[in-house]
Amino acid sequence: MAGKPSRLRGDRVTLAHGGGGRAMRDLIEEVFTDVFQPPGTEDQARLTHAALAEPGARLAFTTDSFVVTPVEFPGGDIGKIAVCGTVNDLAVGGARPLWLSASFIIEEGCEIALLRRVVRSMSREAEAAGVRIVTGDTKVVEKGSCDTLFVTTSGVGVIPPGRELGAAQIRPGDVALVNGVLGDHGATILAARGDLALSTPIRSDCRSLGHLVEAVLAAAPDMRAARDATRGGLASALNEMAEEAGVTVMLSDEKLPIRDEVRGMCEILGLDPLYLANEGTLVLFVPEAQAVAALQAMRAHPDGEGAAIVGRVTERGSVPVVTRTAFGATRIVDMLVGEQLPRIC
Amino acid sequence: MAGKPSRLRGDRVTLAHGGGGRAMRDLIEEVFTDVFQPPGTEDQARLTHAALAEPGARLAFTTDSFVVTPVEFPGGDIGKIAVCGTVNDLAVGGARPLWLSASFIIEEGCEIALLRRVVRSMSREAEAAGVRIVTGDTKVVEKGSCDTLFVTTSGVGVIPPGRELGAAQIRPGDVALVNGVLGDHGATILAARGDLALSTPIRSDCRSLGHLVEAVLAAAPDMRAARDATRGGLASALNEMAEEAGVTVMLSDEKLPIRDEVRGMCEILGLDPLYLANEGTLVLFVPEAQAVAALQAMRAHPDGEGAAIVGRVTERGSVPVVTRTAFGATRIVDMLVGEQLPRIC
Repeated sequence: MAGKPSRLRGDRVTLAHGGGGRAMRDLIEEVFTDVFQPPGTEDQARLTHAALAEPGARLAFTTDSFVVTPVEFPGGDIGKIAVCGTVNDLAVGGARPLWLSASFIIEEGCEIALLRRVVRSMSREAEAAGVRIVTGDTKVVEKGSCDTLFVTTSGVGVIPPGRELGAAQIRPGDVALVNGVLGDHGATILAARGDLALSTPIRSDCRSLGHLVEAVLAAAPDMRAARDATRGGLASALNEMAEEAGVTVMLSDEKLPIRDEVRGMCEILGLDPLYLANEGTLVLFVPEAQAVAALQAMRAHPDGEGAAIVGRVTERGSVPVVTRTAFGATRIVDMLVGEQLPRIC
Repeated sequence: MAGKPSRLRGDRVTLAHGGGGRAMRDLIEEVFTDVFQPPGTEDQARLTHAALAEPGARLAFTTDSFVVTPVEFPGGDIGKIAVCGTVNDLAVGGARPLWLSASFIIEEGCEIALLRRVVRSMSREAEAAGVRIVTGDTKVVEKGSCDTLFVTTSGVGVIPPGRELGAAQIRPGDVALVNGVLGDHGATILAARGDLALSTPIRSDCRSLGHLVEAVLAAAPDMRAARDATRGGLASALNEMAEEAGVTVMLSDEKLPIRDEVRGMCEILGLDPLYLANEGTLVLFVPEAQAVAALQAMRAHPDGEGAAIVGRVTERGSVPVVTRTAFGATRIVDMLVGEQLPRIC
């Protein structure tokens, strides 16, 4: 881009930018492909990677749409979250993330400067996560037909031979760990919407977890399963995993790492931090004998400094997830029934 | 589903269906995964295919978002188009399509019956195209924050060793063919919007072209390049290809297969059918010596019955694409500057 005059007229996206003609080509070249630098010029990426051809390796494939509002928030934006979310879906399944696609649905009138910021943010996060954004698409819809900007990413990675992470592997005696504090993303979005007149220093935990998962696997090679605790929070992730494994997860309230600010906000609003969304916090299960090694590996990693052992797996009791309160009682941690906060990611 | 009572309450999607809890799980299981039957229960598909491990094979990866309005139209719906569009992006690049992801952004209030129809339509089209929908996502946004339903598909395929289709391969002397009539999709959407009080029997050409491309490649193995003439129509596809190859494409007006109804509609509305979108019509280039074989292969295939030779490639003249009119004059076929019809796909 340096030195090249922009061919884009005006500072907002118009319907012409979605029409398939010259205006669209200019928008895509200047705002998207100049930054992402996808390989080739055809409407498909053509890719090779030695790890894919290894006998026993499997390809992992995942997708997520992102509709978070506001589009930019403390600690991230819709682009960063779109990269992290898809990288994390690959990583928690044991795949090494390789390539992403990115598809944009843009509202007529969207500021081009906003698009540029989102695209740069995606490019930065992709580099940090060690993935490449190799293909994409843009659509423009009339004002009022979408809310500013939606981003859909898909990801392709490779699962090394012999690696088999999955909730079905979890068994009684296993230990549950998280890599950091819970609920920061949900609390950040809630505060950023502004209609609660809350002012807080909390930032989204939005980050890519591929490197962290590899570090834990090196230290605790029999890791059973991991899941990023996004929509529905830790409670929903644990309920799904415990259901699938046919076990009960016993948490301990006092071991759950939650910031005082998040706890305070939840008390004021009547929310449970266990259901608040995270975008860079995962829960993982390891055999008891590898729990300390896993904890140390996480704490030694920049994305796991706040790691903690939060619970243990028992034979299946009456419900999938319970937590022991500070007073020694136990409380059922149910699956979220309704919605806690729309458009959190 | 047969016999199982539905756990979905009401007949419309609510915000709770996007919240990460039980309502979301019920919607996803009953409406999506029961039909698509993705492998496994983790949030990533884990896939193997012998063709991927073949020495010299490459992985092809592509994505598109679909925002077409209306969501259902004669000859297709947003789900069918989302499968065909991504299958076709893979196929025209020479890849054999294998797997798709599907991500849905749903407006609060969307009818669940509509979702079910769209999902069934995707499932049918995927089966016809020989691909599997292996992973997906759903998001729900508040009423007014998107228009009914947007679908984003990504596709993974494999390019066999030695196959290298691309516009850069096109050279002077080559012949351009299309597989059928032009503009049916654009004309159908235009009529379906209803605000023109046009009544027409035209249906969208929406179809998957993977099998057709393989049939042409068998008959004309030196095929240079292909592209599906979607947004921006044949004119935009040819302009892009000719620019990239550094050649001029010389069309012949009278050889362009266009239905009388489409021609008539364009005359009334002042549109040029060369810019109308197609969703199952491609243009491809072959060496002159293989042009007849390619034409015969297309005509012998159910998706190519209306195939025709439409132009020839010359050394680069003053513009990338020209057409010879019925009166013997030539006319520049420029790249579309603005937009012809928003939300055509």
